[in-house]
Amino acid sequence: MERNDIEALVERLRAGDVRALARAITLVENGAAGEAPGLLSLCFPHTGKALRMGITGAPGAGKSTLVDRLAGRWRAEGRTVGVIAVDPSSPFTGGALLGDRIRFRDRQEDAGFYARSMATRGTLGGLAQATADVALLIEASGKDALLIETVGVGQDEIEIARLADITLVVLAPGMGDDVQSLKAGVMEIADIYVVNKADRDGADRVEQEIRAMQSLAQTHGEWIPPVVRTVGTTGEGVDNLAAAIAKMHAWLTGQGRLTARRALQWARRLDAMLRTELMRRARQHGVAEDELARHAAKIAAGQEDPWSVARELAGKIVEKK
Amino acid sequence: MERNDIEALVERLRAGDVRALARAITLVENGAAGEAPGLLSLCFPHTGKALRMGITGAPGAGKSTLVDRLAGRWRAEGRTVGVIAVDPSSPFTGGALLGDRIRFRDRQEDAGFYARSMATRGTLGGLAQATADVALLIEASGKDALLIETVGVGQDEIEIARLADITLVVLAPGMGDDVQSLKAGVMEIADIYVVNKADRDGADRVEQEIRAMQSLAQTHGEWIPPVVRTVGTTGEGVDNLAAAIAKMHAWLTGQGRLTARRALQWARRLDAMLRTELMRRARQHGVAEDELARHAAKIAAGQEDPWSVARELAGKIVEKK
Repeated sequence: MERNDIEALVERLRAGDVRALARAITLVENGAAGEAPGLLSLCFPHTGKALRMGITGAPGAGKSTLVDRLAGRWRAEGRTVGVIAVDPSSPFTGGALLGDRIRFRDRQEDAGFYARSMATRGTLGGLAQATADVALLIEASGKDALLIETVGVGQDEIEIARLADITLVVLAPGMGDDVQSLKAGVMEIADIYVVNKADRDGADRVEQEIRAMQSLAQTHGEWIPPVVRTVGTTGEGVDNLAAAIAKMHAWLTGQGRLTARRALQWARRLDAMLRTELMRRARQHGVAEDELARHAAKIAAGQEDPWSVARELAGKIVEKK
Repeated sequence: MERNDIEALVERLRAGDVRALARAITLVENGAAGEAPGLLSLCFPHTGKALRMGITGAPGAGKSTLVDRLAGRWRAEGRTVGVIAVDPSSPFTGGALLGDRIRFRDRQEDAGFYARSMATRGTLGGLAQATADVALLIEASGKDALLIETVGVGQDEIEIARLADITLVVLAPGMGDDVQSLKAGVMEIADIYVVNKADRDGADRVEQEIRAMQSLAQTHGEWIPPVVRTVGTTGEGVDNLAAAIAKMHAWLTGQGRLTARRALQWARRLDAMLRTELMRRARQHGVAEDELARHAAKIAAGQEDPWSVARELAGKIVEKK
């Protein structure tokens, strides 16, 4: 694509053209040769105002229902909403998209709403990066609130949740290990706990377990993650959840905390982007894919030492004029 | 550490000194400044002969019991065995080590056996890399068979399984979603399926489901992954499992397939190692951590564009003499 075409695409995307947004996302997801950085770079100045929320928790806790409820509530208030549903364990993007169409059928005609599924794309870490890029495009299309929902509670999900300004961790009674199953990594990223399906037996116990684990976990400055009870299927407690989010948002925007949090996120992303850019230049400077493969074959045969090879290849790039 | 000290450590490790091995693993896990590459490089020539097996599958399928059975069987045959138990969702290495001591108490006096737990260490992808490094050290200490066991079935586990020559995927009847829960990513890496707890109702159905999914999945050349039934608690079927592993091993060593498989693994690792080495040099050439943090703060405040920053920083390194 020519520079002009990319600029035109960004213009259409910003004007609310859903097809342009979908096209841009596809370009970024496919890592289209050299186009993604330019596209993202053009969109970047039009971002920063939306509130980005991550929603994680064990499968079956009712995250999707809560996302739908929150989205519906904010749309009713006139706020525009974007949703990204990420399933790191699924290799199928296409399949997930079908799920979207069914799930968000009622909102298909709503110009203030956009939903997109993402699935795993080969490399580790790549999914968090790709999710961040897609979130940026959706935000640039003029959404006030972004909900990034993950399917499970593994390391991938934690990485994705770290992209968010506010992370909701959703639990529900009667899910086997309950809070134990979440592991400490998830507890560390929680800004707000949601006990969903709170009309079921055991909601008290789940809340008690959260409180008990919380006393062991590190705190987030002065912010003490609240526990909010909801029943996603009826909408009960969703007002309280929205209020907790609004409260945290207000806390974040005070004393530059939001910018500080985002700066930490950008430091991580910048590190990853720099690695990618260095590898791209490494390829330009003669370390081609097939050169890596040639060395790998010699290493597998025990004829070369991988650490020496890495040093030698890095030297070729860095010393080169 | 001086070069001489590292050489002495490798000598002791190779001579079967368990403490030297543990020390080397700790150095590599902690990414001790500059020592890990030298240490690994010295160990590398003493590796390549061991068979590396990955064992993955849903929690509760009985992977640990099977690992213990296989290890016991091979030890009885006089083969030396190393075990790495990886839990990507746990942030605690120390805690996992306590588990080892209890689990492998009976083998504590056995010089032909070594077990080590690993847990998540901050960065994504880093765990697979660290597991590969630890596997290399254990192999260099003179083990004939390496069993790399993961706790769950997420993307991390798939990355770790990809380090292996042979990947076993363990299922068991009555585990909720059964085969469906494994997702296609796991099906693609399976070389041998194990239906454990085969004395329970539903073993037939699990096997049928595997066969059904298999017909959809890609094949591994001429190798059609067999399905082996076991009862880990009694040891039933473990002979058949060992035979299936031996058969695959023989198939792999024929026509250079093992070397080809390892070459693919090394190509992936070499790419990761090159990125790490480039970043290390980037730091030497003046892209310090605090420079990244400074840019990140400006990006978060919307004053700089991250893609331009990444290009600029990469340019500083690659253009530099």
